[in-house]
Amino acid sequence: MNAWALETGSKLPPLVPGKLRLYSMRFCPYAQRALLMLNAKGLDHEVVNVNLARRPEWYNDVLPAGTVPVLYQDEKVISGSMPIAEYLEEAYPQPRLLPSDPYLKALDRSFLDSALACASLIGSISMKRGSKEEHWANFIKKIGLFEKELGKRKTTYFGGDQPGLVDYVVWPAFPPALAFSKLYPDLKMPAAEEFPLFSRWLQAMRGHPVVKATVNEDHVFLYAKSGQEGDRDYNAGLQK
Amino acid sequence: MNAWALETGSKLPPLVPGKLRLYSMRFCPYAQRALLMLNAKGLDHEVVNVNLARRPEWYNDVLPAGTVPVLYQDEKVISGSMPIAEYLEEAYPQPRLLPSDPYLKALDRSFLDSALACASLIGSISMKRGSKEEHWANFIKKIGLFEKELGKRKTTYFGGDQPGLVDYVVWPAFPPALAFSKLYPDLKMPAAEEFPLFSRWLQAMRGHPVVKATVNEDHVFLYAKSGQEGDRDYNAGLQK
Repeated sequence: MNAWALETGSKLPPLVPGKLRLYSMRFCPYAQRALLMLNAKGLDHEVVNVNLARRPEWYNDVLPAGTVPVLYQDEKVISGSMPIAEYLEEAYPQPRLLPSDPYLKALDRSFLDSALACASLIGSISMKRGSKEEHWANFIKKIGLFEKELGKRKTTYFGGDQPGLVDYVVWPAFPPALAFSKLYPDLKMPAAEEFPLFSRWLQAMRGHPVVKATVNEDHVFLYAKSGQEGDRDYNAGLQK
Repeated sequence: MNAWALETGSKLPPLVPGKLRLYSMRFCPYAQRALLMLNAKGLDHEVVNVNLARRPEWYNDVLPAGTVPVLYQDEKVISGSMPIAEYLEEAYPQPRLLPSDPYLKALDRSFLDSALACASLIGSISMKRGSKEEHWANFIKKIGLFEKELGKRKTTYFGGDQPGLVDYVVWPAFPPALAFSKLYPDLKMPAAEEFPLFSRWLQAMRGHPVVKATVNEDHVFLYAKSGQEGDRDYNAGLQK
């Protein structure tokens, strides 16, 4: 249940009383936000991965908004990556991943207000919607905002000397971006000298234990490649 | 300062110590979110309206994200309609406009996750981007979500028997939508029988004192008309 994507014909595994369950797709950047938050909080949980091309019969009943991620716990159901991330922060305050001061929290939210679009820009390349060069150019513009914000904060991570909610919710755009920069010679990640603070952040996030335990970059690359070749492999990198 | 839009050549009025200042544009649905929250909380504040076509020289210094709304109070600066709305809720908890229970708050945020797009759909019609028929069709689909959610909640407003944060932040799409439905015969608001709960909500919001004190629908109509005719009047309805 924790890896192989359930597809048409699969049975819906019964909920475990009290246990958090995340409906996910291993390579969905929105679902990754929720998963990183669960892991950063050290919360016991289970993941049900779904094959979005051959959807299980129970898909619409279980995913009321029609998309992953959805978080369940007993009768509680929360849809949407940011509502889930904010819920986990409020319901499980330790470790704290957003400042408790309302103004500092507002600064995090203001930054996210523009930075979160990274995921949809990369998602459009992934889904082959519109011009990939144009999406990439807008993505690189957003990286300019990262550089500026890290310069203001004077810390390695947006969250300080450890990643916080901001880091975990913006991060999931980067593994697919790195994959696309390998797949397409014209999609170049910026040079370290151009955006030194961003580049330090990128390396720090790639090496952080919470990120490493959640996202396998080699698998993301295989998935990105399969998608661009036209046969999206929801189980990329797994052995059945 | 509270109405006429400041333009090129205007002086930046000095901040009043301790006082909340909202940089706004009278017909921006995002700025309206912030304004409705300020009024619903009964917070003393001042509004600086900006002419977006003939921007004041101080525009970029004062509006770091390049857009309204921005909230100032002394050295505090918050950009973005939702960060401002959430900040006002946290910093000024009375009257409470979001549930305090994390799960109920998550349900509000999940609904907003899809409903907030109403503003950008109507904004695209306002800015004449893409096909207005297509944006309108997507807007009407969102109204279907309103109907469903109000049916679940079994209350007049999303916030209960009084509007809450959800109501105030989704509302600003509707005055321009009503204006467009008058300007264009093919953009029809749904019949009351089709979406009875939504229609009751719409009428209740239109008549609510906080909404009536914030948005003048006749002025919104004049602004929408001027924009569609090609000469956006940021001071529509005002006498100099």
